[in-house]
Amino acid sequence: MIELTEATHKETVSIFTEIEDMNHEQVVLCHDKETGLKAIIAIHNTVLGPAMGGTRMWNYATDQEALTDALRLSRGMTLKNSIAGLNIGGGKAVIIGDASKIKNEALMRRFGKFVHSVSGRYYTAEDVNMTTRDMEYIRMETPYVTGLPEYVGGAGDPSPYTAYGVYMGMKAAAKEAYGLDSLTGKKVLVQGTGNVGINLIDLLIKEGALVTISDIFEDKIKRVTDRYKVEIIAPDQVAGANVDIYAPCALGGTLNHDSIALLHCDIVAGAANNQLLHEISDGQALVDKGILYAPDFLINGGGITNVYYEYAGNHSRERVMAQTELIYDTTLRVFEMSQKSAQTPHQSAIKIAEDRIKSIGNIKLPS
Amino acid sequence: MIELTEATHKETVSIFTEIEDMNHEQVVLCHDKETGLKAIIAIHNTVLGPAMGGTRMWNYATDQEALTDALRLSRGMTLKNSIAGLNIGGGKAVIIGDASKIKNEALMRRFGKFVHSVSGRYYTAEDVNMTTRDMEYIRMETPYVTGLPEYVGGAGDPSPYTAYGVYMGMKAAAKEAYGLDSLTGKKVLVQGTGNVGINLIDLLIKEGALVTISDIFEDKIKRVTDRYKVEIIAPDQVAGANVDIYAPCALGGTLNHDSIALLHCDIVAGAANNQLLHEISDGQALVDKGILYAPDFLINGGGITNVYYEYAGNHSRERVMAQTELIYDTTLRVFEMSQKSAQTPHQSAIKIAEDRIKSIGNIKLPS
Repeated sequence: MIELTEATHKETVSIFTEIEDMNHEQVVLCHDKETGLKAIIAIHNTVLGPAMGGTRMWNYATDQEALTDALRLSRGMTLKNSIAGLNIGGGKAVIIGDASKIKNEALMRRFGKFVHSVSGRYYTAEDVNMTTRDMEYIRMETPYVTGLPEYVGGAGDPSPYTAYGVYMGMKAAAKEAYGLDSLTGKKVLVQGTGNVGINLIDLLIKEGALVTISDIFEDKIKRVTDRYKVEIIAPDQVAGANVDIYAPCALGGTLNHDSIALLHCDIVAGAANNQLLHEISDGQALVDKGILYAPDFLINGGGITNVYYEYAGNHSRERVMAQTELIYDTTLRVFEMSQKSAQTPHQSAIKIAEDRIKSIGNIKLPS
Repeated sequence: MIELTEATHKETVSIFTEIEDMNHEQVVLCHDKETGLKAIIAIHNTVLGPAMGGTRMWNYATDQEALTDALRLSRGMTLKNSIAGLNIGGGKAVIIGDASKIKNEALMRRFGKFVHSVSGRYYTAEDVNMTTRDMEYIRMETPYVTGLPEYVGGAGDPSPYTAYGVYMGMKAAAKEAYGLDSLTGKKVLVQGTGNVGINLIDLLIKEGALVTISDIFEDKIKRVTDRYKVEIIAPDQVAGANVDIYAPCALGGTLNHDSIALLHCDIVAGAANNQLLHEISDGQALVDKGILYAPDFLINGGGITNVYYEYAGNHSRERVMAQTELIYDTTLRVFEMSQKSAQTPHQSAIKIAEDRIKSIGNIKLPS
């Protein structure tokens, strides 16, 4: 069980550097030899409530990459949950490894025990390479899991709510850019036609927008073309596409120095997380180009709102839709604040999220 | 609260390397900007029960050094607690920083909240640069703390029990080396005359041993000379001292390549943690020189036994003394196993500790 190890010299690296920079509360490194589990639970901020955010499984090249991902994603959840007006903090977990090779019941349940060990300071949910079945395994070891399938009492698929929130944010951006929030006749490019993308397309088509799509997977494109007549463009044509609105709904980092130079659109409003590769410089580059950016963590908060009401125990479709609809107002408020303060919309949205945490933190009763 | 940070390139280093090598279960990185707290809670093994081990505050040169220290110390606690026959696992915490500068009530209580957050999987206690007052602050935030002062219901100073266990281990070594376990007339060098050292000296003098002492602090030497007539040697004369028994009761790592070459003694038996700088090679070097080594984590387990019964809620002086006395038998068993298996005593002691964890792990009922 325990190996005799000789003392060895290690590279000097500051483990706390990123934790201090981004101001995390707690990072839990989890290891289990039997199942081969290596996981990181990052708890960024719990002022508003327990940290909530999904678990991602990924075959990271290095442990450091996994840590950085967990730290950035958990901070993003703090911002998202705060600006959505939810009483939860920000957290995220990553499991290191190839899901197709090492994921099994024992690994997921061992992970569930680790989630349990932080005593409800972190609630997990589905994310990349995780399934509702995995959530059920985690649920066998801990109650601190949300986003369960409807047949075991969960709130079900969050994608329609995420799509609805993005749609609200997009309409607010149209209101700001064009004076009218109608999307009728607007050319909208949806990059990534997964579960959120296709729900967004439903809403856009219904309103009479002219939809263009792009995806790296043929089957996902087909799912759209089976339903609608839409224009399709190749993934490498996305950045330069001549459209009114660009909706990144796939990977993060699509707004970067190279892509922004090519963009031909008035508005960016999509569901992907971490769209700006560099939060400050790329956010500013969009402003400089006269492109209105609806902050990702603000407008994609519909899904977590759905999960939140499952956690809070008072979920209903109407409640989630009503709360998600507020994204429209908040997005307009962000644009107004951004103009008045000469900040980018992304910075203004962060300020709103942080101010809420600060003010609610101040009124907390001693516990 | 949250700073906007640009993505930066990080050194690639494998955070899990040591955790996998030493087979830890869980490592918790704790951070609080307000109080300046940076702490690491290392939970090595919880098969026998919750991980127990003290909190050390130290001004580490790097975070990595702090992590390595926490990982090695927590593994040591697993071995110590197992071979002592206690129903607790191994853990340890370190707080990074200069205790004389940053330690205060808020910092200790914030740390207590983090101890609480791992839901009783880790129990803390006093270690280097911590006081019973600090334990009281931690106790305000969590029940998962032991080693409290007697006036608040704790089991009090563990030093007499640690000293008694070292004395038992030393007598067992004398039995093995000389055929008789009497220490009467034996020249014993006690390096480090802190709380454990002075209690050990009491026992040695009572039995008629010829005690030599060494310490880097004048006031600690004076505390002994006020009571007894003993020989005093300078710290740099310790390794080469011509004695029967050498008892390291100060820092770790005093048994290393250089010092072992100088040793003139039959037995090493002391209270310091991690006496062997390199567990395998330095342990073997002692065997090669014909010096009998009583493993540190075995014979210094009296203190944690005292703390254990406080945790278990059935503490009495008699119970702790009786359990500590068993160190005599276990030490003899280690020497016997070592001879039969051509392992060093240190390796045999590790084997006994690991075998207990394995066998108890196997009989555990599902929980």
